Amino acid sequence: MADAVTSRESDYSQWYIDVVRKAKLADYSPVRGCMVIRPNGYALWERMKETLDGLFKATGHENFYFPLFIPERFLAREAEHVEGFAKECAVVTHSRLTLNEEDELIPDPESKLEENLIVRPTSETIIWNTYADWIQSYRDLPLLYNQWANVVRWEMRTRLFLRTMEFLWQEGHTAHASKEEAVEEAERMLDVYATFAEDYMAIPVVRGRKTASERFAGAVDTLCIEALMQDGKALQAGTSHFLGQNFAKAFDCTYTDENNEEQYVWATSWGVSTRLIGALIMTHSDDQGLVLPPKLARDQVVIVPIYFNDEQRTQVLEEAQRIQQELDDADIRVKLDADDNQKPGWKFNEYELQGVPLRIGIGPRDIENDNVELARRDTREKNIVPQDGLVARIQDTLTDIQDGLFQQALERREAHTTTVDSYDAFKDVIENEGGFVKAHWDGTEATEARIQDETGATIRCIPFDRDDEPGEDMLTGEHSEGRVLFAKAY
Amino acid sequence: MADAVTSRESDYSQWYIDVVRKAKLADYSPVRGCMVIRPNGYALWERMKETLDGLFKATGHENFYFPLFIPERFLAREAEHVEGFAKECAVVTHSRLTLNEEDELIPDPESKLEENLIVRPTSETIIWNTYADWIQSYRDLPLLYNQWANVVRWEMRTRLFLRTMEFLWQEGHTAHASKEEAVEEAERMLDVYATFAEDYMAIPVVRGRKTASERFAGAVDTLCIEALMQDGKALQAGTSHFLGQNFAKAFDCTYTDENNEEQYVWATSWGVSTRLIGALIMTHSDDQGLVLPPKLARDQVVIVPIYFNDEQRTQVLEEAQRIQQELDDADIRVKLDADDNQKPGWKFNEYELQGVPLRIGIGPRDIENDNVELARRDTREKNIVPQDGLVARIQDTLTDIQDGLFQQALERREAHTTTVDSYDAFKDVIENEGGFVKAHWDGTEATEARIQDETGATIRCIPFDRDDEPGEDMLTGEHSEGRVLFAKAY
Repeated sequence: MADAVTSRESDYSQWYIDVVRKAKLADYSPVRGCMVIRPNGYALWERMKETLDGLFKATGHENFYFPLFIPERFLAREAEHVEGFAKECAVVTHSRLTLNEEDELIPDPESKLEENLIVRPTSETIIWNTYADWIQSYRDLPLLYNQWANVVRWEMRTRLFLRTMEFLWQEGHTAHASKEEAVEEAERMLDVYATFAEDYMAIPVVRGRKTASERFAGAVDTLCIEALMQDGKALQAGTSHFLGQNFAKAFDCTYTDENNEEQYVWATSWGVSTRLIGALIMTHSDDQGLVLPPKLARDQVVIVPIYFNDEQRTQVLEEAQRIQQELDDADIRVKLDADDNQKPGWKFNEYELQGVPLRIGIGPRDIENDNVELARRDTREKNIVPQDGLVARIQDTLTDIQDGLFQQALERREAHTTTVDSYDAFKDVIENEGGFVKAHWDGTEATEARIQDETGATIRCIPFDRDDEPGEDMLTGEHSEGRVLFAKAY
Repeated sequence: MADAVTSRESDYSQWYIDVVRKAKLADYSPVRGCMVIRPNGYALWERMKETLDGLFKATGHENFYFPLFIPERFLAREAEHVEGFAKECAVVTHSRLTLNEEDELIPDPESKLEENLIVRPTSETIIWNTYADWIQSYRDLPLLYNQWANVVRWEMRTRLFLRTMEFLWQEGHTAHASKEEAVEEAERMLDVYATFAEDYMAIPVVRGRKTASERFAGAVDTLCIEALMQDGKALQAGTSHFLGQNFAKAFDCTYTDENNEEQYVWATSWGVSTRLIGALIMTHSDDQGLVLPPKLARDQVVIVPIYFNDEQRTQVLEEAQRIQQELDDADIRVKLDADDNQKPGWKFNEYELQGVPLRIGIGPRDIENDNVELARRDTREKNIVPQDGLVARIQDTLTDIQDGLFQQALERREAHTTTVDSYDAFKDVIENEGGFVKAHWDGTEATEARIQDETGATIRCIPFDRDDEPGEDMLTGEHSEGRVLFAKAY
């Protein structure tokens, strides 16, 4: 029997690590800050990727692939961008190893590169350098492209999925003839991310815009979706940037418009990463391990056969295979675990740990009575149900689980969203309750920085649906245009 | 009208580059040796990847993901492996850039790494280091895993797709309890590659084993599939390695067997890369541009509407959309190009360049007569055909194209495979005709090296189906167990 998962209440951080490792999603690697994404974790990423890719293609995007390496000088072209990324990047300086006199492998001094290469932390620079070649006329626009890639940011404090030195992501990079079109694209892609988060990951998100200090390095405007985790901390689940003409100007990317005048091209970029797997875990999982929304689970149903002798084995497996076939025919993703090396009890525990949404147990007595045992991972309810109508019941239950997970997360978020008017109340909530806090802010970076220094909370976003009235900053008393969303964040 | 492609006869190398660039498959990048895979090229890779991934999963494999970086010391653990890869690898030595006194970006001396990292050229070392943690008992075996990743080998002479510093590939890494099982796995995966090459890429391949000098660095046995390109040069299209216990010993990876004895684990690895796109181009394409086998074409059919006024436009587009819908309903991948900015003639040329297998032209007169014009990319035949029965005709034609491309390539290969008995005849064929040459070899590295030095030809493989008799080495007269396959190669 696998060791139990640490409870959330006793140690939330350890609980998270336990779930990741015991559900075999990921593991530490010998390279500090990098992780090994294990088959269970990668299968989840594959489904997320496939779903997102479908949404990108449905909105007119195609995939391409740009080099892993970015010449040092490219980074320097966009002032804010280099400021944002130069301090934490992997620098390639040599192209060969050799043995020194002590027989140790060292970079061969003779292979020192003329120009150092950076392992991409993001690809705006190298892509816009090429867009300058691809774009001549308004007829070449828009370019609606995306790439699935690995990127590296030299993080010191890492945590599996949530913050790793190397991570997998997608980065969309689009080029447009007008500001309006680019802004619209950035908004469209934020909507795609929100749809994916809510309809597939079952994670409710707040859509909004980052303050200037939290913007992507090189962006004019950064839109984001923010989610609330079970411990009351926020997690940024996706960003979509309106880049204005910053990169076009840095890489001299212009087009000839319909009046034959030369114009700089307008840009967006947008991305989500394997970090989302961390968000998924921290939204739905419990003290028994991982909980997966059916739409993203590799196996939606696992069948565990129960038998005590060979005769039963033959009979039970036959029945189990029949059910497997029926579910498979109905496009339900089903696994039959007929491994004789493990006992049913061990399997029950294992699939609970791995978050499989539904478990079917079937033994000799079930067959006698034309029943199966159906166990839900989310509510941990078990029911003896008739085999008759099983497929329809399972389809309904999967829908119910998907919806239920979203509802539960939404209710938790609502319960942990507080509106405050005073700084004392703000500090009290941030310190003791956590969650999202809606408060007035005067719009200055100075106030934002002071609040962060004093409380650890940051402005997660200026929500799009800020329906409340103007007011006064809780700290300075200065004019505020409306409440913004604060929280401590991952 | 796009510029024409250089003919194969006048300059084969330039023809290849022209096809790659004019079909918008890939482009040079500002990083020497790296390429930009453009949307047309990436769409092809996506279909190849999806197909291969399905074949891997059908043979019981799952995907995972290991870090991009490999600690320097890992490479040193397997002697042949370090020998093979240390001479051409990207070395990361710093984790930060800073400005020097001249305001230039330089690696920050204070960020120098304690241990340098290598950008993976292949992942055996880092994976086997972790397998040592994952494997304890025979019950943990086999591990049947694969990863889709980018790798970097510091190549000096690069060519789009065929040889690039960074390339995309998959690398399978399996662990087994017995030698027999590992050998069987290596053979199984070679079969998967051969099936993929022949049934999807329409490229006939010879299956065989590499000589010792051509083995993967660290392998006990390297199996390969070899294809013949239109210029008579061979291209290695996939390799599958039996690694023995080399990596298990280097990383101390053992398991307890059923008799409670500790044993080293047996290994395989196998991979194919974006290089296959180069093979695809050089097998089927012609002086008009790319030719794609229908199974891998993103668009199997393109519909080009033809009209001369608005009234015709409405009528023709309506009919074109109806046909598009019909094909789509029959799961044929179809694109309707209704772009008014380009003339039909330009489109005909463009889709020919891009290798779309079938083109439907439809204009007012076709509608009047219930016909369409159907043009095949492979044979460049055009026929006026009735709209009645169009879907079935297209399905049949796509099958015919797929089969025809394979047959054509097979016949070309047969016509360019020569059996020789003397070294003079060998040199003559290699120099003047090219192609595969079957000849006797005494099995020594010395002879192999001398033949390569003198003729530029290498032993591509010792074919599995070597049905001929023992004989005498064409150069030394020593005993030969049977003919092997020589060629000049990419």
